[in-house]
This record gives sequence, structure tokens and C-alpha cells, in this order.
Amino acid sequence: MKIGIVGLGLIGGSLGLDLRSLGHQVLGVSRQERTCKIAVARGATDEAATDLALLADTDLIFICTPIAHMRSTVSQLIPHISLETILTDVGSVKASIVQEIAPLWRNFVGGHPMAGTTESGIEAAQHGLFAGNPYVLTPTETTPSDAIALLESILRPLQVRLHRCQPEAHDRAVAWISHLPVMVSASLIAACLSEADPDVIKLAQALASSGFRDTSRVGGGNPELGLMMARYNRAEVLRSLLVYREQLDRIIHEIDHENWTTLEETFQQNQAARPKFMK
Amino acid sequence: MKIGIVGLGLIGGSLGLDLRSLGHQVLGVSRQERTCKIAVARGATDEAATDLALLADTDLIFICTPIAHMRSTVSQLIPHISLETILTDVGSVKASIVQEIAPLWRNFVGGHPMAGTTESGIEAAQHGLFAGNPYVLTPTETTPSDAIALLESILRPLQVRLHRCQPEAHDRAVAWISHLPVMVSASLIAACLSEADPDVIKLAQALASSGFRDTSRVGGGNPELGLMMARYNRAEVLRSLLVYREQLDRIIHEIDHENWTTLEETFQQNQAARPKFMK
Repeated sequence: MKIGIVGLGLIGGSLGLDLRSLGHQVLGVSRQERTCKIAVARGATDEAATDLALLADTDLIFICTPIAHMRSTVSQLIPHISLETILTDVGSVKASIVQEIAPLWRNFVGGHPMAGTTESGIEAAQHGLFAGNPYVLTPTETTPSDAIALLESILRPLQVRLHRCQPEAHDRAVAWISHLPVMVSASLIAACLSEADPDVIKLAQALASSGFRDTSRVGGGNPELGLMMARYNRAEVLRSLLVYREQLDRIIHEIDHENWTTLEETFQQNQAARPKFMK
Repeated sequence: MKIGIVGLGLIGGSLGLDLRSLGHQVLGVSRQERTCKIAVARGATDEAATDLALLADTDLIFICTPIAHMRSTVSQLIPHISLETILTDVGSVKASIVQEIAPLWRNFVGGHPMAGTTESGIEAAQHGLFAGNPYVLTPTETTPSDAIALLESILRPLQVRLHRCQPEAHDRAVAWISHLPVMVSASLIAACLSEADPDVIKLAQALASSGFRDTSRVGGGNPELGLMMARYNRAEVLRSLLVYREQLDRIIHEIDHENWTTLEETFQQNQAARPKFMK
């Protein structure tokens, strides 16, 4: 199949590597000449250009730009492609994207490959990035079923774990397990940094080990990523934060009132429930 | 040297293994016959008994019981030992323990080896558990300096990173980097479990990956450990939780008011500061 990719970063580049090795012809578009050259040199695309016209003839196009540029990318793409072309995106929030793009293009299927590394850019693209990881599709009632079927048939050989759900259910679920942890973890680092006694800070830094390392990891990561979650999944992130604060207040209350039995029950419920969130 | 260990669990047993391999004679006391037998069989102690009288002749005794039993253990030990015997404990909070035990025994040095595994008990004891990890001593103004010096000379060959500080500074520092992360992480799991839509919960469980895994790890661990932190370091844990809640409220406010620049600055400060807490 002839597949287009707009945005040749970590996700777009890694998709290109996998799709080409499965025998597809992959055409890439990036804003930057330099990225186009690297994509071809690394084998992530057969051809690459800065002009969306390159994708005129493709059957399926992955929109892999930053979320902020997805809508305008699709608008600019439309004059070049045929009505049969299937569009899909890889944005990590879905409701806002689907609401913006679905009215512009009938054959659009929202998607979210849940894979990544700490690196970004075409240089970080790698074979097999998606294998074993969830890939969520968020069609709506009006999404043509043959568009979904075709996209799934392209994705399945990447050995992803395909999920289908409403865009809103996706955004709520990722708020819980991806976006809320970032805010919770960011608040932890910010709280530690607000300790006024420099000797205590120094000691805390010297004594910090795996517990702090793990709990602070996602809150000390890429600032753009955290910002993007808050911005584009704002309502669900806020909702999860308010529920979180209630739970936090409950734990504060139990400790304050020395309700050790209730506190122990919470810890026991957590210990029992956590494995269900692990693969 | 002739060294006693009361409480032959993970910490006591591991200390015994290391100290014996450094040529010390190690005598152990446990409440349970069975534990005594395993300790000797595993080479964690030269001898072991359920009677504290076994330690009559020792130069240094590690109190490795649960925190709740430390005070009574010392009281029961005192009739058996000479005034020169140095006592030290391995409790993970220090101010309350030091306040309780220092008045009972002049040659007492509070201590906290910051090492562990997910396992517990004599079966989990291992050689080299402490190597490379912090070992905090919390002497007070009245602690005899030769008692501190002797304890340090015994510990140094274990290749621990020795720290000395006030008991209160220890408790405040570990509240930040060990106890607060547990409460923050526990609240995260509890919040996710409060989602009312079973489909969203199922989806969240299916989509959860390394971000959730790491952020929820210490909050989904041993309930007794979390309870112990809250109980014995209550004031400092509460203090850190209240500061944490302020930071959380700040992040909620920034998202609610779409103050993206301020939010990005917080993420940037976190990203810059976190490496200082990493070894």
C-alpha cells in the first residue's frame, strides 16, 4: 500500500521504519529539508519532501505533527488528496482532535499509539517501537467501517494491542493512568523544592533512592509533554486532579486523626488493585 | 568484635551476614525458635536464641525489631548488659526512637540503614544489602563521641555512605523523599479506583504503562510499611503533605486558569532539579 506520513519525528519516523519493512511504500512530509534527508537516509521513508503534494496518491496518511498543528495540516492536505484517502492521527488526546478533524474529512479515524522513549525526533525513530504496546482507535458513529477495517489491517502486523473506544473514554482513561501521574509527580518535586531549610534539602537529595526516583520520574520529564497533556486534555485532567485531591485529603485526615485502621485498609486496597494496572 | 542483633528479619539478618563475613562474632536474638535456627543455618549469626541473656557479653548491639517494640526491647535488654555496651537501632524514623531510648541508655546511637528489598524476614536476608546505600546516624549532644566512632568503624567496611545529622533533620528529609512519595502514590491509586465508569477503569487498566507503574509503585506496596511511616513520623509526614497539597492546588489553579507559561516553568524547574536527587 502507498502510505503517507506527515511529521517525521519519533512516532512518524518509527511508523515509517516498521511500515516499510512490512513492504509498504512510505512517503514522508516534514517542514524541514534536513529531516526529510535523514528520514530517507535512515530508511524511514522511500521519499520525503516539504510539500504535501507528495502525498497526492496515497491510500492512508498518518498525521504525526504536534497536536497544535494537526488541524491546519489536514486543511492544507485536503486539496491534494482524493476522497478515498484515509486519514489518521497519532495524538495523545482524542476528543478535541476528533471534534476538529472529523467534520473536515469523512474518512478520518482518530488514533493513539501508546509508545515512546525519552528521546524525540527522527534520530530517535526505531524499529518495533509499537510492538506489544496499546494502539487505541477512536472512531465515532459516522466513521466509515471500511476505513477502520483498513487501518486496523495495516496496524495489526506491527503487533500492537489494538483497542477501540469513544474519544471521550480514551481521554478519561489516559487522564487517570498517564496525565494525572505527571501532575501528581510534578507536585511532589515542586513540594520538595519548597523546603526552606537548605541542610534538609541537601540531606534529602543525598538520601533519595528508588522510591523518590520512581515517583518523581514522570513529573521531572519533558516539560512540553506535561504542558501538552494539561492543555489538550484540560477538562479530564482537571477532573482527575479534583478526585485525586479528595483522596489526598482523605489520607491527610486519616493521619491527622490517627485512624490507622482506615489508613491501613486504603493501603491494602491499593496493594490488591495495583496489579490489575500492570501487564 | 562481639556483636549482638535483636530481631532477625531482613535488616538484622543481612547485617549479621555482612558482619560475620568481616570476621565479627555475631549473636542473634529472635522471638521465634524457628527464626533462630534459620539465622544460624544461613550463616547470619554464630549463635541465636530467644533469650536476651545471650547478648550479655557483647560490645555492640543492633536493635532490629519493628519500631513498636524497640523501647521495650531495650528495657528488657538493660538488666543483661554492661554499661559499656553500645546500642544502636535501625528504625526508619529517628526523633521518636531517640527520644524514647536515649534516656534509657547513655551509649545509644540512633541509626537508619537505607536499604531494603520488597521481601522481608530472615529468608530474604542477603550479603551486601547495605553496600553503596546511605546509613544515617543521628547522635545527640549527649551521645558519647567514642560510641559514635566505634559504630562508624564497624559500619564503614560495609561500604555504606555514612551520614550524620539531627534526628529531626533525618525525619524531615525522609518525609520528603520516602514517606511523602508513598502517600502521594497511594492517593493516585485510590483516586483511579474511585472512577465510577467500569468501562473507563477497564480501559485505564489496559492502557497503563511505565508512567503509571512507576508513579504508583510505592503507594501499592507493603501496607505495614506505609502505616509505619504515617504513625511514627506523623508530624513530618503531615507537614510535607500540607506543603504538597499547596503545590497540587497551584498546578490545579494553573490548569484551570490556562496559565500555560507558569505551568511550563514549574515543569522546567522540576526537570532541572530532579537530577540532584539522583545518585
